[in-house]
Amino acid sequence: MPATNLPTRATIREVGLRDGLQSIQKILPTERKKEWVRDAYAAGQREIEVGSFVPPKLLPQLADTAEVLAYAKTLPGLFASVLVPNLRGAERAIAEGADLMILPLSASHAHSLANLRKTPDDVVAELAKIRAARDAAGSRTLIEGGVGTAFGCTIQGDVQESEVLRLLQALLDAGADRVSLADTVGYANPAAVSRLFEKALKIAGDRFCCGHFHDTRGLALANIYASLELGVERFDASLAGIGGCPHAPGASGNASTEDLAFMLASMGVGTGIDLPQLLALRAKVADWLQGEPTHGTLWRAGLPKNFQPSSLRP
Amino acid sequence: MPATNLPTRATIREVGLRDGLQSIQKILPTERKKEWVRDAYAAGQREIEVGSFVPPKLLPQLADTAEVLAYAKTLPGLFASVLVPNLRGAERAIAEGADLMILPLSASHAHSLANLRKTPDDVVAELAKIRAARDAAGSRTLIEGGVGTAFGCTIQGDVQESEVLRLLQALLDAGADRVSLADTVGYANPAAVSRLFEKALKIAGDRFCCGHFHDTRGLALANIYASLELGVERFDASLAGIGGCPHAPGASGNASTEDLAFMLASMGVGTGIDLPQLLALRAKVADWLQGEPTHGTLWRAGLPKNFQPSSLRP
Repeated sequence: MPATNLPTRATIREVGLRDGLQSIQKILPTERKKEWVRDAYAAGQREIEVGSFVPPKLLPQLADTAEVLAYAKTLPGLFASVLVPNLRGAERAIAEGADLMILPLSASHAHSLANLRKTPDDVVAELAKIRAARDAAGSRTLIEGGVGTAFGCTIQGDVQESEVLRLLQALLDAGADRVSLADTVGYANPAAVSRLFEKALKIAGDRFCCGHFHDTRGLALANIYASLELGVERFDASLAGIGGCPHAPGASGNASTEDLAFMLASMGVGTGIDLPQLLALRAKVADWLQGEPTHGTLWRAGLPKNFQPSSLRP
Repeated sequence: MPATNLPTRATIREVGLRDGLQSIQKILPTERKKEWVRDAYAAGQREIEVGSFVPPKLLPQLADTAEVLAYAKTLPGLFASVLVPNLRGAERAIAEGADLMILPLSASHAHSLANLRKTPDDVVAELAKIRAARDAAGSRTLIEGGVGTAFGCTIQGDVQESEVLRLLQALLDAGADRVSLADTVGYANPAAVSRLFEKALKIAGDRFCCGHFHDTRGLALANIYASLELGVERFDASLAGIGGCPHAPGASGNASTEDLAFMLASMGVGTGIDLPQLLALRAKVADWLQGEPTHGTLWRAGLPKNFQPSSLRP
């Protein structure tokens, strides 16, 4: 069946500052992170995951998350999210006034134990505590439960669809405002995405908010296209495709923001992003991260001759 | 709308020996080309474009096409095609007994003049002559008319959909057994593919035989997925993604055979290809072509832990 009903607009949530930088040894100075946020905002990005409230000892690259978040909050209309691994991180996200905090859960029990040192159901219980703390604080920080390794895992291999869906429902029941699905290790394919996301949308309705795809095997954009066909309107992506999960051997490269922005714009799906400005930022960030692996194709090929910049802000 | 009706089988036509090698300066020795054909066949590939009957002066890399074709014909059940730029090339394809000859036509008039030194309608007229010659010779060599720059062109920019479809119809009327569409310069996107291929299928029915996508801007696999949803069952691809059109500046990289084979196999679309064997051949060819740009992701990431080899030959 052809794609006749793509959404007219979609949001790219920039995760380069979190998922990208956490997997790179080099520590990007705070001033450069702010410059990244500033330029991304100027290029039209309106949702940015600015960091993670994890102990600085574990991820020194993200130790300045509070400062980057405070800067992001000065930009009108920018929706700033952070990743939180537990209640402790969530308390910081609430205190610092993040717009959204994302609690990752791994549907693979083996990966969950290796990555978070908790079972998936422990994470669901943690989300309930986070919800209670948020409500008690009278905070407006939204809570997203993100189910990762949703298409398989490098440690245990298969992850059952039924288990992914059970955990999605459990997160909603525990008080998540939103849920999302992630192909943490690049095992998804468009047919599997169609199958799983259709069921996830039936469970979560408009509380299903985002797809997160790694490009490990070159299928991130095809997977995103399959999700778009179902009406999914928000995708995580990372400038220059940096990132990947440090606890999933072989996983590397998020969907690259600039390639995704190009795909969406060329299909007439509005993102609000100015591509030449985004490519200029991409060049700057790639320069800052010299020596680290970067990805993507548009930066090298350039925009097509018949590309209509007007299609960028429909 | 979700993809509920993917084909159960699809064919990857290997074009690395033609589209790939023609854009690489290095001349691969005939014995290595035969080894490539032999190993591709052993890995399960059953359709290979072995070369092009163009003057050796223009493309010395493909001067041994007749010899490679003769070798390919010794492998039972292998369907060997060649590219022919004109009647003269077609006469050689007929004489050498190719299973199929592909006459490329560029829907962009500017690209057609630069690349073939003919207008698109001149090429249609050439196809009619080829058909007459084929029939007069009592040959069984099939004729495919391939419409390139179907989604735009690096020289003239836009290419009108109506012009692409007019030329597709004209090729059929002139006697093509089959027609195909090519995104010669990597300008396509999945939504445009859905729109154009749906119309092309209405015109050509089961004489529409193949989609040819370049990965210049990372969208080849997404574009192939969009075609699969319409029921298209044959795609050109090039091992290690080598190739691109030498007359289209900036164009580079066909869809990579191994990544496409992986995408199809993981979706349960049978290709007959043994992926580990194909990856071994990919390593060999990449070694032969050391110093030349190669592409693709699967060779680096490897197959997923939960990948079922049994899904390869359903």
